[in-house]
Amino acid sequence: VAEKLNNYENTNRLFDKAADIIELDADIRKILKTPFREVKVELPVRMDDGHIEVFLGYRVQHNGARGPMKGGLRFHPEVDFDEVRSLASLMTWKTALVNVPFGGAKGGITCDPWQMSQRELEVLTRRFTSRMGLAWGLHRDIPAPDVNTNAQVMAWIMDQYSQRYGYTPGIVTGKPLGLGGSPGREAATGKGVSIATREAARDFDIDLKGARVAIQGFGNVGSYTGKFLHEMGAQIVAVSDASGGLFAGDGLPVTELFDHTYEHRTIEGFGQGEALSNEELITLDCDILIPAALGGVITQENA
Amino acid sequence: VAEKLNNYENTNRLFDKAADIIELDADIRKILKTPFREVKVELPVRMDDGHIEVFLGYRVQHNGARGPMKGGLRFHPEVDFDEVRSLASLMTWKTALVNVPFGGAKGGITCDPWQMSQRELEVLTRRFTSRMGLAWGLHRDIPAPDVNTNAQVMAWIMDQYSQRYGYTPGIVTGKPLGLGGSPGREAATGKGVSIATREAARDFDIDLKGARVAIQGFGNVGSYTGKFLHEMGAQIVAVSDASGGLFAGDGLPVTELFDHTYEHRTIEGFGQGEALSNEELITLDCDILIPAALGGVITQENA
Amino acid sequence: VAEKLNNYENTNRLFDKAADIIELDADIRKILKTPFREVKVELPVRMDDGHIEVFLGYRVQHNGARGPMKGGLRFHPEVDFDEVRSLASLMTWKTALVNVPFGGAKGGITCDPWQMSQRELEVLTRRFTSRMGLAWGLHRDIPAPDVNTNAQVMAWIMDQYSQRYGYTPGIVTGKPLGLGGSPGREAATGKGVSIATREAARDFDIDLKGARVAIQGFGNVGSYTGKFLHEMGAQIVAVSDASGGLFAGDGLPVTELFDHTYEHRTIEGFGQGEALSNEELITLDCDILIPAALGGVITQENA
Amino acid sequence: VAEKLNNYENTNRLFDKAADIIELDADIRKILKTPFREVKVELPVRMDDGHIEVFLGYRVQHNGARGPMKGGLRFHPEVDFDEVRSLASLMTWKTALVNVPFGGAKGGITCDPWQMSQRELEVLTRRFTSRMGLAWGLHRDIPAPDVNTNAQVMAWIMDQYSQRYGYTPGIVTGKPLGLGGSPGREAATGKGVSIATREAARDFDIDLKGARVAIQGFGNVGSYTGKFLHEMGAQIVAVSDASGGLFAGDGLPVTELFDHTYEHRTIEGFGQGEALSNEELITLDCDILIPAALGGVITQENA
Amino acid sequence: VAEKLNNYENTNRLFDKAADIIELDADIRKILKTPFREVKVELPVRMDDGHIEVFLGYRVQHNGARGPMKGGLRFHPEVDFDEVRSLASLMTWKTALVNVPFGGAKGGITCDPWQMSQRELEVLTRRFTSRMGLAWGLHRDIPAPDVNTNAQVMAWIMDQYSQRYGYTPGIVTGKPLGLGGSPGREAATGKGVSIATREAARDFDIDLKGARVAIQGFGNVGSYTGKFLHEMGAQIVAVSDASGGLFAGDGLPVTELFDHTYEHRTIEGFGQGEALSNEELITLDCDILIPAALGGVITQENA
Amino acid sequence: VAEKLNNYENTNRLFDKAADIIELDADIRKILKTPFREVKVELPVRMDDGHIEVFLGYRVQHNGARGPMKGGLRFHPEVDFDEVRSLASLMTWKTALVNVPFGGAKGGITCDPWQMSQRELEVLTRRFTSRMGLAWGLHRDIPAPDVNTNAQVMAWIMDQYSQRYGYTPGIVTGKPLGLGGSPGREAATGKGVSIATREAARDFDIDLKGARVAIQGFGNVGSYTGKFLHEMGAQIVAVSDASGGLFAGDGLPVTELFDHTYEHRTIEGFGQGEALSNEELITLDCDILIPAALGGVITQENA
Repeated sequence: VAEKLNNYENTNRLFDKAADIIELDADIRKILKTPFREVKVELPVRMDDGHIEVFLGYRVQHNGARGPMKGGLRFHPEVDFDEVRSLASLMTWKTALVNVPFGGAKGGITCDPWQMSQRELEVLTRRFTSRMGLAWGLHRDIPAPDVNTNAQVMAWIMDQYSQRYGYTPGIVTGKPLGLGGSPGREAATGKGVSIATREAARDFDIDLKGARVAIQGFGNVGSYTGKFLHEMGAQIVAVSDASGGLFAGDGLPVTELFDHTYEHRTIEGFGQGEALSNEELITLDCDILIPAALGGVITQENA
Repeated sequence: VAEKLNNYENTNRLFDKAADIIELDADIRKILKTPFREVKVELPVRMDDGHIEVFLGYRVQHNGARGPMKGGLRFHPEVDFDEVRSLASLMTWKTALVNVPFGGAKGGITCDPWQMSQRELEVLTRRFTSRMGLAWGLHRDIPAPDVNTNAQVMAWIMDQYSQRYGYTPGIVTGKPLGLGGSPGREAATGKGVSIATREAARDFDIDLKGARVAIQGFGNVGSYTGKFLHEMGAQIVAVSDASGGLFAGDGLPVTELFDHTYEHRTIEGFGQGEALSNEELITLDCDILIPAALGGVITQENA
Repeated sequence: VAEKLNNYENTNRLFDKAADIIELDADIRKILKTPFREVKVELPVRMDDGHIEVFLGYRVQHNGARGPMKGGLRFHPEVDFDEVRSLASLMTWKTALVNVPFGGAKGGITCDPWQMSQRELEVLTRRFTSRMGLAWGLHRDIPAPDVNTNAQVMAWIMDQYSQRYGYTPGIVTGKPLGLGGSPGREAATGKGVSIATREAARDFDIDLKGARVAIQGFGNVGSYTGKFLHEMGAQIVAVSDASGGLFAGDGLPVTELFDHTYEHRTIEGFGQGEALSNEELITLDCDILIPAALGGVITQENA
Repeated sequence: VAEKLNNYENTNRLFDKAADIIELDADIRKILKTPFREVKVELPVRMDDGHIEVFLGYRVQHNGARGPMKGGLRFHPEVDFDEVRSLASLMTWKTALVNVPFGGAKGGITCDPWQMSQRELEVLTRRFTSRMGLAWGLHRDIPAPDVNTNAQVMAWIMDQYSQRYGYTPGIVTGKPLGLGGSPGREAATGKGVSIATREAARDFDIDLKGARVAIQGFGNVGSYTGKFLHEMGAQIVAVSDASGGLFAGDGLPVTELFDHTYEHRTIEGFGQGEALSNEELITLDCDILIPAALGGVITQENA
Repeated sequence: VAEKLNNYENTNRLFDKAADIIELDADIRKILKTPFREVKVELPVRMDDGHIEVFLGYRVQHNGARGPMKGGLRFHPEVDFDEVRSLASLMTWKTALVNVPFGGAKGGITCDPWQMSQRELEVLTRRFTSRMGLAWGLHRDIPAPDVNTNAQVMAWIMDQYSQRYGYTPGIVTGKPLGLGGSPGREAATGKGVSIATREAARDFDIDLKGARVAIQGFGNVGSYTGKFLHEMGAQIVAVSDASGGLFAGDGLPVTELFDHTYEHRTIEGFGQGEALSNEELITLDCDILIPAALGGVITQENA
Repeated sequence: VAEKLNNYENTNRLFDKAADIIELDADIRKILKTPFREVKVELPVRMDDGHIEVFLGYRVQHNGARGPMKGGLRFHPEVDFDEVRSLASLMTWKTALVNVPFGGAKGGITCDPWQMSQRELEVLTRRFTSRMGLAWGLHRDIPAPDVNTNAQVMAWIMDQYSQRYGYTPGIVTGKPLGLGGSPGREAATGKGVSIATREAARDFDIDLKGARVAIQGFGNVGSYTGKFLHEMGAQIVAVSDASGGLFAGDGLPVTELFDHTYEHRTIEGFGQGEALSNEELITLDCDILIPAALGGVITQENA
């Protein structure tokens, strides 16, 4: 049986394949694979019920040779050094491939934001900023929204950071428009995925018009992807999120579903389509499967 | 058989014993056991032979509630997060017990300084300072000499830190006297150990005059301890360091041995006394054994 | 009938008398009477019951020619520009008379701290610091405790100020000892009043031993004054505070009363002595009357 | 008779009318009506004749929730807290209405600039900047020219501010072009008034071509308004300033009058037109009256 | 015989001629001729052979009234205060003539960069930056490439300056493109010279097509000038640099020569054309002579 | 005849003699003889009569290896780079010889302070500070009073420097007591000279009691020296300054002369003693000659 690799080993295995092809020196490989800086902070928060919970926050700055490091912050129970290290290194290669003058970083807090009140999330985010902020900077490392972190979280970070270091709106991307955010950012990743899907479909001679699409993970990225693919003529036959899945053989009503999800942050309670498990969705017979949830879902078994 | 605990678990087991006695809340225990901040940095150095070696540097800031965190930096092949985390927490308790307004931290670089040239050590230390320095500060965290780091290393740190943050002699303790260091610091730990030994001997009704003393680890701490115990009348019958051990049934000539070691940074080549292995020294029949090397030496087996 | 003057006019009338005596130039008089800088800030606080209350905070920097301006912050419903302006100017003359290199300032917030929760007071104090702090500074203006502001309030100010401007323990005096405060400060004013009383008694040929003393205002200053005068042999026959007064013809038990007041912040509920109105206390037949409450109490009528 | 309201009460009466319409909460009304911060400073200046005059300078920062506060500085004998507070609040509503990301502020010095030498004005302006500057900042509050303050005054402010805080050309608007000012700024308000007049004329079915216009206050705003209305075809039949008024039944020669005023800063000595008092001008029979002097001129009596 | 004037006297003689024409006041002349600030620094460098060489570095800031001072840094054995003072003043007039908001400065190090290793040049440049950098600044003085200093030298300066003063890419112009440099800068001066030559040729009725051009100094400026003039149709019949000259009656192969020079930084070893001394080149019979080497070459004798 | 050496060559000749004795390496000699940094600034001042005078100001920082550089500022018509360079190097050796952790610097302005008004001196000093201040700093270079610069000049410097860099009283020594100066500084050099004279007299077997002393230069140093030698019993028979000399065979009344000079800054108009030329004073027959004027007075001819 295949030995289980952690995320970062997986990522580096891919890096080594590429490095072999360009015959990269061992010295340089080691520099490129070793993260530049890794920081972990303790985050005690007095919860609404009065007890103190201690969270852990992470930031891995993988490589900044090409410019300020950029990368998202995620709030999720599975966040640990291995995950953010892997994602940080992918940011390094991603920014390099599209040739923007940025390096790669990633961070997060091990927590379950769905079980926390708005006040608890604010205190947690501000404490994280106070303790992690010394590693950030306009020319060093710039956080961004990621899994379970939105414009509001970025606003808390910007405010807390500015209290200590002076007014610095550029310390985060993904801010609310009213605080200087860029319009279109929320839809950007979904836009990119839908365009990439269109191009890939063309390469595989799949006609997007009427193509049957299943979207695993109908969060920010998945829902915008669904919306744009729908506009391109595709039929969204199945979607899923943490609450379960929905199926409609002749296509789900995407616009209504998008609005429902935007408001409720879950597909639960939509009231149309048949129920479907996440596992059924992944193995569903369809033309295109969009995996838009967290990593590690597609395996040799279900591929 | 006893399950093997890592350093930090060992340290926290002791903490929990104390916490049980004072019936400390679970909330507060968790805050006190979780380190405040941990940082790891990548340290590429072009070695004298032209290849690039990538070292790793660590700093754990355990707790700063009582004042700026303080703690040594060690250069050693075994340095890792577990070791510095354990030592950092001990610094927290140590500064609290003697009631000085400081918190606890510790750091180090995984390297073998005995195999490196002076130039390589300087480049390594300066790079470490450049990448770790943002976590330090007069009111936040102040490094100090520790295993294999001396006044010269502190001078490099102070110079490199001052280049970035302005003239800051207080960013390290253990500086050379000419750069503002405090006289007597080099001998301080050995002085403390010898005084503690004298007090302990009194408690155990051992007469220090003529007592037979073995010193495991004749580095900075061990050699000053030997010198001061000798002045108090004790007989130093055996010493050891990484190069091996020396034994003299009627006492080694401590003053000459101290001078030899001060100059050569090893007892090797002293030319007097009989050879002795470290293991023999620890199990030697003597009145007082001073364990002045790295931690984890005394076990249930050799105790 | 005497026309009613406000505080600042009263204070300046005294200044003019002194200025007449030394024949001070009109130009210089105007400079010395005009406050250097006056700042008023809006302080919205979400109260515990959910509604937002808007408080007003003041700081008058009267004159800083002789060094950094110093002066207390008071929390009181009567605080306004006129009051703090008057008190600020008195600080200028006070520091000049005892020839310490400081200038005079004063500030406060119009609020009733006895009706506010600890959380509300903290939010109020921190907001005041955020909005007023730009006018302070180690070399410019340094707040201190005053009516209804204690070491805890100073600690909040120091913490909030340090978040914005870096660690600055010297930005307030009267800090808690554990944060760098000076021992004895709490008792200092009362100590001074009792010494001044002793000297004044000598001038008037009153024997302090057995002298009958009434203390109007048994807060921080009044209670320490009572304690020290008691130690000098005086009999404290009456005290009062906002809750009313207490009288005992043969002397109140000062030590117990001091402890009661220290704990409960009021003489109410002490359970000994006869009740007495504030007005009765002031007109009481006694050897010495200590007016230790807010200003404007002694008038031509009751003198 | 109508009770006389001060400026700020007048302004807030208007605010309350609007707030009633949108049924604004009492909490929020209080926050919006209370100025964020008010500062008054003492400004001693050694006058050309050798004596020291003490001026007072004011700045009211009304509300900065929507961005850095902006607002003019005026030099005028009537400047006091009430006036600048009223004007500052109007700036808040003005910037909000045209939806630019700025808040509202206003300031000034109580002085008569027409009686002062250039040197005295420079010293006064620089002293004001030294003492008030800590309340300004690129992201906090940015002064601008207003009544009796021009590009030269802004240049003094910018120079003095930059000496203390580093080169900061953005600390004022309305700078000289050579120091980074924006072309067209001097004419901007007059341009706006003439356009608004044109639009209002259309609404009232007044034909601007040949319309008879009287301009009360022929300073910066009034003279540019006159120039632009003249270009639009209107006839400027009367103008006035502090020195008196001028009248010409068939229109004043606007271009020459503009040039005369630009050079001499007064219409006095123009040598054409009949004399006219300000009061006569306001009650003159004309199609359009432009009130371009200070506020409070139009009353129920003369309307 | 003509008395020999130093550079700065020569330059000021020209200034005085112009000043006479506009009848400039003596006061202002003196201010304009006196450099604003001159700095000389000691630059000890440990050379590759182990000995320490002490170099001298210069910077003359001539006049910054019109904006930040700008001007090149040259590495040359003849660099001294007189030379850089003269060139700095020319920068003042140059920036004023083309009406860009900059002042004039110039600097350099007395050294022979052709005899130094890359490591020695880097150490020299970084030391110069450390000791001279306090006189630079985005709003004060900005170095640029000049004789024997290229984008690599600017990159060292930018890196060293940023270490002390924070990330400041704008502290130099002429950076590598990858660090934020402007494309086209390397060719800019040559482009300008070729355009000026074309315009001058037109004035003198010289047809550039087929015109015979000699270029004295085939470095950065000379080689780009040659390339552009060649593209305009001219025939480059002779070029020279420190290694000697090349001649070809019917035109040198400019494209190949440009590439050779770009790679080898000298025309030496090009292998085409006849040898020619620099002196012969200057007195060569040609239509156009481009003097693109250091100053002071054309004299009354060879003109 | 002896070739005339400039000051710095003279000074270095002495250095070389010492260096020969300790066989100092040529490399190190060159480093030690080359000044670290030299700065010259242009100082335009509008004089009281309205014309603009351009002064030149100098600062030579000779060597700072042992700590912050220190050294006086002199205002004198002969000030130039050669003089301050020589004096700066002497400060380096002086601070090293008495083993205080400071390096050597010196500066000055070429001007005749006796011909300038107080206002002109203030403007000159403040402009010098504005333009030279970037080379100073608490850890870099600290000016001090010297020839014709007193506590008032230091106060202007401190004030001007603090305006730009924040409150920095330590930027000068020799401040007025009220601004934080050290008591006794004014008399310090004279005190030192008188003690050195006493010790030298003992070595030469001269009895100070009744010894006949001539003091060339009765300024700050000379007058205090005279006062202290007088208190030690010596007879001051002759003094001189720029206005001429005074002689009294049986001793001048030193106390009165000191007071006269302190008030009038010259011995002129004292009204006692016989007139004497400076040249006569130097060649006067006396036991001890104190040369307390500027350097270069004693030559082979008059020695």
